[in-house]
Amino acid sequence: MAQKLVECVPNFSEGRRPEVIDAIADAINSVPGVLLLNRHEDSDHNRSVLTFAGTPQGMIDAAFAAIAKAAEIIDMDAHQGLHPRLGAADVVPFVPLKGVTMDECVEMARTLGSRVGSELGIPVYLYQAAAARPDRVNLEDVRRGQYEGLKTAIQNDPERAPDFGPRKLGKAGAVIIGARNLLVAFNIFLTTDDVELARKIAAAVRYSSGGMRYVKALGLLVKGRAQVSMNFTDFKQTPIARVVEMIRREAMRYGVNIHHSELVGLMPIEALAEAAQWYLQLEDFDASRILETRLQGLSEIQKLE
Amino acid sequence: MAQKLVECVPNFSEGRRPEVIDAIADAINSVPGVLLLNRHEDSDHNRSVLTFAGTPQGMIDAAFAAIAKAAEIIDMDAHQGLHPRLGAADVVPFVPLKGVTMDECVEMARTLGSRVGSELGIPVYLYQAAAARPDRVNLEDVRRGQYEGLKTAIQNDPERAPDFGPRKLGKAGAVIIGARNLLVAFNIFLTTDDVELARKIAAAVRYSSGGMRYVKALGLLVKGRAQVSMNFTDFKQTPIARVVEMIRREAMRYGVNIHHSELVGLMPIEALAEAAQWYLQLEDFDASRILETRLQGLSEIQKLE
Repeated sequence: MAQKLVECVPNFSEGRRPEVIDAIADAINSVPGVLLLNRHEDSDHNRSVLTFAGTPQGMIDAAFAAIAKAAEIIDMDAHQGLHPRLGAADVVPFVPLKGVTMDECVEMARTLGSRVGSELGIPVYLYQAAAARPDRVNLEDVRRGQYEGLKTAIQNDPERAPDFGPRKLGKAGAVIIGARNLLVAFNIFLTTDDVELARKIAAAVRYSSGGMRYVKALGLLVKGRAQVSMNFTDFKQTPIARVVEMIRREAMRYGVNIHHSELVGLMPIEALAEAAQWYLQLEDFDASRILETRLQGLSEIQKLE
Repeated sequence: MAQKLVECVPNFSEGRRPEVIDAIADAINSVPGVLLLNRHEDSDHNRSVLTFAGTPQGMIDAAFAAIAKAAEIIDMDAHQGLHPRLGAADVVPFVPLKGVTMDECVEMARTLGSRVGSELGIPVYLYQAAAARPDRVNLEDVRRGQYEGLKTAIQNDPERAPDFGPRKLGKAGAVIIGARNLLVAFNIFLTTDDVELARKIAAAVRYSSGGMRYVKALGLLVKGRAQVSMNFTDFKQTPIARVVEMIRREAMRYGVNIHHSELVGLMPIEALAEAAQWYLQLEDFDASRILETRLQGLSEIQKLE
């Protein structure tokens, strides 16, 4: 395993044409030392999430290649979908996985942002841990007005000037680049098509309107079902199981229930272990009790011999 | 990772004196290519479970060393505990993990059994996939009468003649050696000290009395609570979550519930993923959606470069 390992989870404004995502995935995989770990496409959101990981330098090159490819083949003037977005490559976060600090990921975000602004001529906003201004820490604030609203605001409103690149939006829109901790993207589908219920439940569980500390949530209508779409920004402090059961209880209060749930991208083993432990009421359990976790130790010992 | 990987999960008749288990663990760890993955000691059962893994040849040597050490320092005439047992090293199963067939593990069991019988003078019974006779496939049948009952039976009853070693029991008792698939040992504690309820519930869920196909279960009184002590012999076909919820429902029928549960030893990541998926109602999910599982692919790619 490499000494330094960074993850990147870019979101792209295309979830209906697989060949577009193929092309972006190929751009990522063509960079040495980098591996695409997962792709998730949603036709209702009209959005895809790619997960890849590798060494810091490889990661900047791969993220740059992905943003360039998306800008070339996605036309934001033609894009429609449920999920808020500013650009073809919409959000590009770096996540420290191993042997890397958050500060190093912030530095990576700035390096990438500078290259995207100058070499691709795409406006770049830095967000979360990489934000240059406090009002750009939250993704939702940066994405205000979406692509359509930003078209004029980027030119007229000095507050919306990008951190890198031109004060003008092309068909690729703008890209939001940053650094953040690992998050789990988790959607819950209800046994109803009443999107108002999903919105009420999202409001009940999310931090911004009085809910759980590390939960972001939106109510959407996806595949004909009301969906509570969530990000768990710290699953250790706000566990997934607790929020799922809170949503179940809120749903029952309206006479509906959970139909099924969906993981977007990947989930760290600790989040999975936490959920299994909660439901199974396991005591004295953590990820070290998983066979495969312990076998990694064996593989390291055998290499030494 | 080694090409061939075998696991061994021996059970020893000592769960109260940590220094005894330390000595056995040291004997295992002193063999090159072998790593102790987990130790679980239960003072009520007065029994310990060690989990170790490594290359086939190393595993035979380590299991032999552990059986020899247990025979030297555990006196079955002085042993009392809740769990049925025949010897100091009571059960020694080999489990194929990677690049190894069940037939190879059966061969390992026979090789080890022959050495234990001739070099240590301890009677050996082969069980499960390694059984030499159909009436020795089931562990429970081999352990009938326990250590105390086998003392005379091994001499007087031709049916109880061991597969290797003398027809005479010393203070180390007999050892049951075999090969089997991975199992999950999982105990559920109830909100009652009524051991009769645990026995009724164990009878309801286990295969032998009409319950689930791949579940073995006993009702015991452990740490002042009624406990349903189980082995899941094929967690893919009989999932843990389903049985836990069946036990909860049976318990409620008697006015009690599940207090907590306990994993003995280790659990494969697939069993954990299955439980989390069941409770979270996740669709399109398997172990490949776990970040750490995918990162192993990255580590292999980076080694190639």
